[in-house]
Amino acid sequence: MSELRQNIATKEWVIIATERARRPEDFAPARRDKSESSRNVFSPHCPFCPGNEKLSPEEITTVNDSDGRWLVRVVANKYPALARQGTLDYHEEHSRRWMNGVGIHDVIIDAREHNLTTAYFEREQMVRVLRAYRTRYLAAVEDDRVELVTLFKNHGAGAGTSLEHPHSQMIASPIVPAHIRDRIAQAMHYYDDHRECVFCRMLEDERRSGDRIVYESEHFTAFVLYAALSPFHIWALPKRHVSTFPELSPDEIRNLAGLIQTILLKINIGLSDPDYNYVIRSLPGAPHTNAFFHCYMSIIPRVTMAAGFELGSGMYINTALPEKSAEFLRNVGI
Amino acid sequence: MSELRQNIATKEWVIIATERARRPEDFAPARRDKSESSRNVFSPHCPFCPGNEKLSPEEITTVNDSDGRWLVRVVANKYPALARQGTLDYHEEHSRRWMNGVGIHDVIIDAREHNLTTAYFEREQMVRVLRAYRTRYLAAVEDDRVELVTLFKNHGAGAGTSLEHPHSQMIASPIVPAHIRDRIAQAMHYYDDHRECVFCRMLEDERRSGDRIVYESEHFTAFVLYAALSPFHIWALPKRHVSTFPELSPDEIRNLAGLIQTILLKINIGLSDPDYNYVIRSLPGAPHTNAFFHCYMSIIPRVTMAAGFELGSGMYINTALPEKSAEFLRNVGI
Repeated sequence: MSELRQNIATKEWVIIATERARRPEDFAPARRDKSESSRNVFSPHCPFCPGNEKLSPEEITTVNDSDGRWLVRVVANKYPALARQGTLDYHEEHSRRWMNGVGIHDVIIDAREHNLTTAYFEREQMVRVLRAYRTRYLAAVEDDRVELVTLFKNHGAGAGTSLEHPHSQMIASPIVPAHIRDRIAQAMHYYDDHRECVFCRMLEDERRSGDRIVYESEHFTAFVLYAALSPFHIWALPKRHVSTFPELSPDEIRNLAGLIQTILLKINIGLSDPDYNYVIRSLPGAPHTNAFFHCYMSIIPRVTMAAGFELGSGMYINTALPEKSAEFLRNVGI
Repeated sequence: MSELRQNIATKEWVIIATERARRPEDFAPARRDKSESSRNVFSPHCPFCPGNEKLSPEEITTVNDSDGRWLVRVVANKYPALARQGTLDYHEEHSRRWMNGVGIHDVIIDAREHNLTTAYFEREQMVRVLRAYRTRYLAAVEDDRVELVTLFKNHGAGAGTSLEHPHSQMIASPIVPAHIRDRIAQAMHYYDDHRECVFCRMLEDERRSGDRIVYESEHFTAFVLYAALSPFHIWALPKRHVSTFPELSPDEIRNLAGLIQTILLKINIGLSDPDYNYVIRSLPGAPHTNAFFHCYMSIIPRVTMAAGFELGSGMYINTALPEKSAEFLRNVGI
């Protein structure tokens, strides 16, 4: 019989379909034919490759080496979902509510090399990427129009990107999406009832049980969610209670870089380089910590597809047992 | 510049990316090669075809013609997400909450013909399908374990089904998913503030404006949502305020059958038979109407894919202008 599990932080129920459960290794996609270009360190028409800087729009900032060469480069998104210029202009008329789509939509070019992926960066490069995230986050919240900053990465076509060159994105939006507001409200309710952060509670329980831990570093714990919405759906939490990403210390940032790369490497090796997304979620507004919200990172290998059942019922079906998924990734040697 | 729009019923914001907007006809998928079998009225290995009844599990009910041949057949899902047998057993331990996955997961075999699709049924057949929905809904809520009944259809692989034979599904679940609870709460808040049903308000505004209407029948209005999450995302609402599907009168059911088929035919012709889902949402519990929730049907052609942006930001980007999408479908001759 399948099992219904609830994520106590989000209050989402998921169906863990253990009867239909597949072995963890069965989720690996068929090995794809990589085109020749993807094996080259430089791709002539790639807008993110060194030498092609003129192909990308406005440069926002760079992290350079001692020779002045960029190592991480942040540019405006060529097809921004939100426009950098313009003032926020809210309208309401009958049942319609709208505003102009202003905000910030950055692309972070994570490395010079076209054919590298995040899992295989040198550690120092990953630290640079996270520092660039921090710099851009802090700049974004200086903008009066911005309410929420989200950092994320799409790796592979199945995760929503057609560009091979390693990159990530920052969206600074003038509204807090309903989905996020709901998470914040749920965390607040939990705090009201229990006088503790629901994420801290999960962290403590996961560390005590150990069943779903994928990897633990000095400052972070990564585990497959008890109520994972899809196979290998991972949350990584800072052990220290902190609500926004920029409040992480330099030491924590460095430690996080190692944790991300370890997990991505395990996923890459164990599941044959699946497409994936990662997202860093923080409390809206300028960096600050309250009692109930905990900054977290979500890592989602795209090994299955949400289908009609999810749309129809509002519930996810996960055909992998989270404990087995975690055990599998724990045991992938890197 | 793109525009942010809010759905006042769900409070979800969506980015209408008018700069990147494509023409409505550009969303039509490339015409697929239909295999020979899909053109045949009977497929030898299809578990839903007449004569193959032994291939499907437990038969639940049928609607028969005067010769005793089934015209609509309801069977238990062979791979049920929720098990029909067993009592609800809730557990809580530290931050884990779980229960056994009990409930009802039916498959409604919509027609005898393997190669028909809903858009092309005879009207009377579509009425029979909706009546079967009603029968099963009423039976499901007699079950003490059931909290919410959702009726839906997946058409095509991109909408989550691998079976060609026309069918739909009913899920009667022992919990109300977070997503649905949130919609109900939002509708309740709106009622608190305005003393009117938010869906009735949308309906009135859409009918007055007319800009987003796709089709209107005696008892129903179908429109592309002002804040549509994807191109051609349609809601169909009964004009009469009613909170659950089984409360629709026989006359309304017949009228709804016509409306569904008209819209599906417009989508089929205008967009070259795209994959789609439809969902009928009702208030949880036994059929009853309250002041704030309105039964509705959502029709979602799967012409684009939600990607990393949606996962990352919690906001959807729609690259089609809802007014243009509606105008396009209005003008498709059927």
